[in-house]
Amino acid sequence: VKRVLVTGASGFLGRHCLSALILRGYDVHAVSRAVSREAAPGLGSGVQWHHVDLLDARATRDLLESVQPSHLLHLAWYTEHGAFWDSPENIRWLEAGLAMARMFCASSVARRFVGAGTCAEYSWRSGVCVESETLLAPASLYGACKHALHTVLATYSAQTRVSCAWGRLFLLYGPHEDRRRLIPSVARALLAGEPARCTHGNFARDMLYVADAADAFVALLDSDAEGAFNIASGRETRLADAITHVANYLGRPELLRLGALPAREEPDTLLADVRRLQTAVPWTPRHSLFDGLDLTCDWWRRQSAQVAE
Amino acid sequence: VKRVLVTGASGFLGRHCLSALILRGYDVHAVSRAVSREAAPGLGSGVQWHHVDLLDARATRDLLESVQPSHLLHLAWYTEHGAFWDSPENIRWLEAGLAMARMFCASSVARRFVGAGTCAEYSWRSGVCVESETLLAPASLYGACKHALHTVLATYSAQTRVSCAWGRLFLLYGPHEDRRRLIPSVARALLAGEPARCTHGNFARDMLYVADAADAFVALLDSDAEGAFNIASGRETRLADAITHVANYLGRPELLRLGALPAREEPDTLLADVRRLQTAVPWTPRHSLFDGLDLTCDWWRRQSAQVAE
Repeated sequence: VKRVLVTGASGFLGRHCLSALILRGYDVHAVSRAVSREAAPGLGSGVQWHHVDLLDARATRDLLESVQPSHLLHLAWYTEHGAFWDSPENIRWLEAGLAMARMFCASSVARRFVGAGTCAEYSWRSGVCVESETLLAPASLYGACKHALHTVLATYSAQTRVSCAWGRLFLLYGPHEDRRRLIPSVARALLAGEPARCTHGNFARDMLYVADAADAFVALLDSDAEGAFNIASGRETRLADAITHVANYLGRPELLRLGALPAREEPDTLLADVRRLQTAVPWTPRHSLFDGLDLTCDWWRRQSAQVAE
Repeated sequence: VKRVLVTGASGFLGRHCLSALILRGYDVHAVSRAVSREAAPGLGSGVQWHHVDLLDARATRDLLESVQPSHLLHLAWYTEHGAFWDSPENIRWLEAGLAMARMFCASSVARRFVGAGTCAEYSWRSGVCVESETLLAPASLYGACKHALHTVLATYSAQTRVSCAWGRLFLLYGPHEDRRRLIPSVARALLAGEPARCTHGNFARDMLYVADAADAFVALLDSDAEGAFNIASGRETRLADAITHVANYLGRPELLRLGALPAREEPDTLLADVRRLQTAVPWTPRHSLFDGLDLTCDWWRRQSAQVAE
């Protein structure tokens, strides 16, 4: 039996992993600090939910002992919009991830650990991030803590029976994204008939539809591949083009205000080389950028309709 | 008031820091899991001892709240001879170090954090380790966990009022070293009139007398220097020469068996560049290699005399 414990399972990425895991024959156990009544129904029937605060090491130990997972898909982290870059909560989640990995690897049934990393582990000066080449020099506490967790896990797993892979995420978008982030804030403004004020958007980014990222994580979990893998589309998108597509799809291009906000200090280009992932596992994104954006707009339209009712 | 909390204060390195801290005017609080009755008397009068298990996060929090240190000299770690390289205990001590640093930095009186790192954070292929140049690529779980702690602390301290330095230790020797390690095992065999079986000893190493390392840590703590610093002599020593000196000093050169043991897989050369430390703080080792070895032999001679009594 392949029994997986998914942390962060009710989150933006985690919720999209559940049905993919069931399809691959996993006995799926999901953990979340609190599953809201509204969110739960759509989240994979056949999933066993556990409500545990992973910052409580004893509760985590009890959870692992009761579930006895062979696979651990560790996605939980502190993700509060804006605050997550530099909050000391990153250190607490690193501590929690270390404790969880240590306890998991000590179990005789443990076989596979896959965790979620970030492009913020890399130095952003390189433009295109390649796992085997790009300097790992996180500028944020978020990147430093994610990087530290992977460094320790990779070294530890090399001396245990548990194999380990690490998926570094770039820019995700899709249903259930935090409403204060780029695509949601633009879509919501336009759906409300209000101007969408943006920066110039002249940034080259790798955008991946969240369900495709979930598929990649599940494919990685279901493989024996070891090490770090960029989880990204491998495509270059100019953010202004993505936003313009959203405005056109929602029929309100006249409300888009590109350049109305000053650009923050961020790299012009932050892209992902995805050859390592594509060589290791049979995965390609199922959604083109425009398909993914259309689905996302449809979802936000339903959300705003529900609110309006 | 400069009030320092020293962790690992009854250990090999820690015990040598206490009087140096008192000399510099610190109000010294020392923590140790258990201070043995035999060890305590010599350990710095004027030091306030706290018996706390730092792997217990609540006890650590209570300790920090009661002591309210402005300075933290964090030396405690898992150091069991042989086992420490790859034990999962390293992960627990990383968790403890993260929690301690997080709680310390959250205090309004916290000003300075200095922690003990290791040459095992570096790739050992370079021969001479230079802080700003040598690749950080730990091959052991010990090195990975130490490196992870520093990575996170350096990033975190940059966004708090607390400044942070990290001392990377190379090969220490001196009184109170674990009796199974190189110099003690040779000295003890010779003092017992038994053959001292060694490898060929054709390894170039940086050897530093432990009291000099303690002085360097205290000088670093008492400065504003930030970042990682090799704490080492800057001298190259062939291990066979050090052992031969010990055998001559103890008057039993005929019992030394260089080459009797197969050499383990370790680098021929592992040396330290110490210019960064020497530029940052006023410190040079007070003991030459032979002086330090003589003092160490004298100490082991007294130990064996006490056992014989």
